[in-house]
Amino acid sequence: MRTRFQQGLDELKNKLLVMGGLAEQAVDRACEAYAKRDAALARKVLISEEAINTAEREIDELALDLLAMQQPMAVDLRFITAVMKINADLERVGDQAVNIAERALQIAGLPVCELPADIPHMAATAIDMVRTALQSFIYARADVAESVLTKDDEVDRMNREVHQSMVQVMKSSPEYTLQALDALLIARNLERVGDHATNIAEDVIFWVRGADVRHHSGAGQRP
Amino acid sequence: MRTRFQQGLDELKNKLLVMGGLAEQAVDRACEAYAKRDAALARKVLISEEAINTAEREIDELALDLLAMQQPMAVDLRFITAVMKINADLERVGDQAVNIAERALQIAGLPVCELPADIPHMAATAIDMVRTALQSFIYARADVAESVLTKDDEVDRMNREVHQSMVQVMKSSPEYTLQALDALLIARNLERVGDHATNIAEDVIFWVRGADVRHHSGAGQRP
Repeated sequence: MRTRFQQGLDELKNKLLVMGGLAEQAVDRACEAYAKRDAALARKVLISEEAINTAEREIDELALDLLAMQQPMAVDLRFITAVMKINADLERVGDQAVNIAERALQIAGLPVCELPADIPHMAATAIDMVRTALQSFIYARADVAESVLTKDDEVDRMNREVHQSMVQVMKSSPEYTLQALDALLIARNLERVGDHATNIAEDVIFWVRGADVRHHSGAGQRP
Repeated sequence: MRTRFQQGLDELKNKLLVMGGLAEQAVDRACEAYAKRDAALARKVLISEEAINTAEREIDELALDLLAMQQPMAVDLRFITAVMKINADLERVGDQAVNIAERALQIAGLPVCELPADIPHMAATAIDMVRTALQSFIYARADVAESVLTKDDEVDRMNREVHQSMVQVMKSSPEYTLQALDALLIARNLERVGDHATNIAEDVIFWVRGADVRHHSGAGQRP
């Protein structure tokens, strides 16, 4: 029979997965709203922020309750503190989605122009990083978590490429400055989503192996 | 006589203050490097990142040790988890400093141009927020922490102003696109420093009052 403490740990994990789903969905919707200039969808992202913030608070409270409930063993202690850190990163993924949605709203009324920036591909990669990082957590798989660190280099590279292309557009076609700046800033938001996924993956590796890999991977130089 | 646990709590607080000093200094130096086009100073910021990351790891380890050492009372539990959260925010303040320093390095070789963007004033305000947030933590003063939340609106406003002015510069003087974009991005970095200071202040309020004020203040709409 599972103890109340163990049931609490299960509940904590489940709540974190729901939180992860909300954060992933927010980024996905925000990028779709941007790509399709869909103001209604962008507004949905802004509204969903409240649900993400509520989920974050509930997870933190439950984690604190569990820490206070009994003397946790070292392994449970690391699990609970990992959840608290992952929770904070997921909330920030949600913040990035809100930033992207705000840009999507801003751009909704501007003339369309074709830009050499593959935001949908970059978004898919960043969202996949978040999902993979959470899976590595569910299955306690440090090797899966490590694949996230590799993907981060790819997202950093995409961000640098978008940055450089958009600067060229702004210089050569000042009339598209706003559109190019939006693409550049959204690429940065997605690069940051990748950073948060990387943080999560590092927390998972720390939790599984008990060793700290933070800051050992390339810091992801920004353009 | 103070117990080993209490000594550990004091050590944790002291380490966090040193960490805060490093993060503040990094932002200050990065902005000075940008303002004076001082590449050597910018490189110092990049080097200091390692010290900040090491400090972050040490604080996290000590916090975990303290959590494992004994059944902490609720008040100590909240203190230790507050330290872990503040620690993560300070590390991210350091990341923002690195981003600013990278931009300062990039701009060092570009022609000088006068831009309508008061980055030094914005930097001073953001750094002051971090310092005030840490002071509110040292003295357990929720009222001081609340003053940080008010200041955040000011930094958000400055960021919006810089954003709008720099878009105008890019449109009207495409030859200064790079310089204007750098100012715009540095303003965003400083706005984020303000966000981290706000997170710290909210953690202090939560710690002192046992109530969660997160997400109750204006979310700081980004331009």
